[in-house]
Amino acid sequence: MTDRSWVHGVHAVRWLLKQHPERVRLLYVQDTRDDARAAEVLALAREAGIKHQRIVGRRLDEWTGGAAHQGIAADVQPARSWDESELLTHLEKLAEPALLLLLDGVQDPHNLGACLRTANACGVHAVVVPRDRAAGLTPTVRKVAAGAAELVPLVTVTNLARAMRVLKERDLWFIGADAQAERSTFDAELKGAIGIVMGGEGAGLRRLTRESCDLIVRLPMRGAVESLNVSVATGMMLYEVLRQRR
Amino acid sequence: MTDRSWVHGVHAVRWLLKQHPERVRLLYVQDTRDDARAAEVLALAREAGIKHQRIVGRRLDEWTGGAAHQGIAADVQPARSWDESELLTHLEKLAEPALLLLLDGVQDPHNLGACLRTANACGVHAVVVPRDRAAGLTPTVRKVAAGAAELVPLVTVTNLARAMRVLKERDLWFIGADAQAERSTFDAELKGAIGIVMGGEGAGLRRLTRESCDLIVRLPMRGAVESLNVSVATGMMLYEVLRQRR
Repeated sequence: MTDRSWVHGVHAVRWLLKQHPERVRLLYVQDTRDDARAAEVLALAREAGIKHQRIVGRRLDEWTGGAAHQGIAADVQPARSWDESELLTHLEKLAEPALLLLLDGVQDPHNLGACLRTANACGVHAVVVPRDRAAGLTPTVRKVAAGAAELVPLVTVTNLARAMRVLKERDLWFIGADAQAERSTFDAELKGAIGIVMGGEGAGLRRLTRESCDLIVRLPMRGAVESLNVSVATGMMLYEVLRQRR
Repeated sequence: MTDRSWVHGVHAVRWLLKQHPERVRLLYVQDTRDDARAAEVLALAREAGIKHQRIVGRRLDEWTGGAAHQGIAADVQPARSWDESELLTHLEKLAEPALLLLLDGVQDPHNLGACLRTANACGVHAVVVPRDRAAGLTPTVRKVAAGAAELVPLVTVTNLARAMRVLKERDLWFIGADAQAERSTFDAELKGAIGIVMGGEGAGLRRLTRESCDLIVRLPMRGAVESLNVSVATGMMLYEVLRQRR
């Protein structure tokens, strides 16, 4: 089962069946689920010509690593990374202000997976990473992402600062996170089309990435340890974006 | 080196030397650090009669697992869990409104470690877990916590709902997180002495824990995946507390 990619949960599977039915190989529905929401998912699969299989919950627990699958899972064509031109096309089609997440040197697969999961949950339109300083879409990344690696596009670019320049021409504004920044997230304007830029484990933002940001902000800290895990810091930044945009 | 517990970073080590010098066995300072902040840490150690050793940075990288140690690390007496009466004494001594984190069934050591790190960074005064439904302070927990397991008290209680009742008599107010809640964190009052209550992986809050909360709130969600990692969700909740308290 390890070569399969899974998306689970009613909401995520329904989204995939509507947006990218071509990527769904087979739908699995727990034998005990016989409600309206399950019926809706089954109807969507039927419309798209996708087969389904009834299955015991325990097997879904195994496959999804004990996640909250809600009795619904899809075996999907694994997502591949996008290039810059695919990102630009994607941005043109958005009906709301763009929200991107740029990860400058997140090399640990657990951290990349956790960032993808957080990014998707917060409505990020794409995650952008530099090719030579990032973990790729490995099995560990996909597992930790809990399905999100199949849902949020991962864009691999050769040069992050150059990609930021191109995106600025499309009126994106970049906000970098740095513990030493003077301005706090509380006092930063995070509306409009933006990219949130997070540094890697330990090293933080590289000089050139930092200089390419329009604004550098710090997250609030009150304790003795001075740094947060990058996926937690990403979650806090995105929370503030959602709060300001609500 | 695996039987040692580490606290690293100037701020965290300074805090420990001031608050709990009796727990510091030996201070390590990178051979290249010769500045005012390092001198201050060395002076604190000298006052407390704690020896120090100069060491190359590469060795500190190894010991702390590549964390941002800033050339300062302390080999410390590993923290032990507290019981309920120690928590109550601790609360009486606080000079600011209490901020507790209650974890109802976080059994994965990576998640517990990540929650401890986030809790300490956000100024949480103690993390409370039920004895039979939580990972203890294992080596994995300490490693993932990046020093925070030695800095934020972990309180183990026999019965979480009972502990919440006792704490309510001390005027604590409990806010539970649940994706299905009607009220969003944006509209919740999170000032005063409070405990943030997070459910475990997959299962969420148990019924009795949920019923013991004064308020149930949901974090904002905008994507296809419907759940966040518990340490990321904890970070968002605590971010909102800090925002409201600033």
